[in-house]
Amino acid sequence: MIERQQKKQRMSRVVKHNNTIYLCGQVCADATKPITEQTQTMLDKVDKLLLEAGSDREHILSATIYVKNMSEHFAPMNTVWDAWVIEGHAPARACVEVSMAREELLVEISVIAASK
Amino acid sequence: MIERQQKKQRMSRVVKHNNTIYLCGQVCADATKPITEQTQTMLDKVDKLLLEAGSDREHILSATIYVKNMSEHFAPMNTVWDAWVIEGHAPARACVEVSMAREELLVEISVIAASK
Amino acid sequence: MIERQQKKQRMSRVVKHNNTIYLCGQVCADATKPITEQTQTMLDKVDKLLLEAGSDREHILSATIYVKNMSEHFAPMNTVWDAWVIEGHAPARACVEVSMAREELLVEISVIAASK
Repeated sequence: MIERQQKKQRMSRVVKHNNTIYLCGQVCADATKPITEQTQTMLDKVDKLLLEAGSDREHILSATIYVKNMSEHFAPMNTVWDAWVIEGHAPARACVEVSMAREELLVEISVIAASK
Repeated sequence: MIERQQKKQRMSRVVKHNNTIYLCGQVCADATKPITEQTQTMLDKVDKLLLEAGSDREHILSATIYVKNMSEHFAPMNTVWDAWVIEGHAPARACVEVSMAREELLVEISVIAASK
Repeated sequence: MIERQQKKQRMSRVVKHNNTIYLCGQVCADATKPITEQTQTMLDKVDKLLLEAGSDREHILSATIYVKNMSEHFAPMNTVWDAWVIEGHAPARACVEVSMAREELLVEISVIAASK
C-alpha cells in the first residue's frame, strides 16, 4: 500500500500511496552555482525522481518552493520555473523565504505529484 | 484524473486529484492593510477558491500558515482565524514565521481540502 | 468521509480523509529543554497521535521539519530523528529554518501519514 524508493535511514526520496507521490525536498546539484543554475539542476532532479516514480512534470499537484533571499532570488528562480512548467499543467504553488540545510543553498522544493 | 482550475503558466490556483484539492498559496487582497485585514481578505479568497473547486471551509484537511513576524502577527491572525473556522471542522494546522514574495505581505496560507 | 480527532476551535490534532492522515504541527513537551530533548518529546507526541489515529511511525508518508537555527540544531535533531525512524520506512522529508510560535521552540514537525 505504501511504496518507498531510494530509501535511506533519514528519508526516502520517493514515497507512493493512494496514487499520490511525495518527493523529499530537492536542492541543486552544485551549491557553488548562482540561483538560475541551482533552480535548473534542482528541477532536473525533480524530473528524474518523478520519472523513476512512474510520473512526470505534467502530473505535479503541489509544490512548495523555498528561497534563501526573496528580493534576490524570486525573479530569477521564476524565470527558470516558468520555462520548466508544461503549459496547462502548472501545480498549485507557494513560495516563501527560509534558510536551508547548508548556508550556500539558495532554493529547495517540496513536491506532491500524481501517479500516471 | 487531475483537474486544474484558473491555470496560469506559473501555477494553477486549484488542483484536484483523488478527491483532494490543493490551493496555491493565498495572500491578502490589499497588502497595505494591517494583519487583521490581510488575514480576513486572505481567508475570503480561500472561501472563494474552495467554492469554485466544489468544496468549502468545512472540508479543509490541512493548512500551513506563514506569518511575517510571529510576535506581532500571531495573536491578531489567530483572532481572525478562530472566528472563521467552522466549529468542529478545524483542519490540522502549522504556523511558522517566514518572509513572503513581497515585503509588505504579513500572512500567507497553503490549503489542502477534500472534495464534497 | 472526513474524520477529525481532538478537535479544538483553532485546529484539529488529527484529520483523516481518503486513507491519509494529516497531523497538526507538533512541538516538544517542554520548550525549556535543549534541541535533542525537544526533538525526542516532539517525536513521542507524533507517535501518540499516530497511534490514536490508527496508524504508526512506519506509515509516515511525508514530514516537514522546521528548525530554529540550522547551524546549531540540524545535526542534533538528525541524530534523534535517525534513531527514531524505522529502517526501510523513512518518509519523504524536507527541513528548513524558521521561527515558530514561541521564541523558545527549536523544532516543529508537520506530518502526513497513511492509515493502516
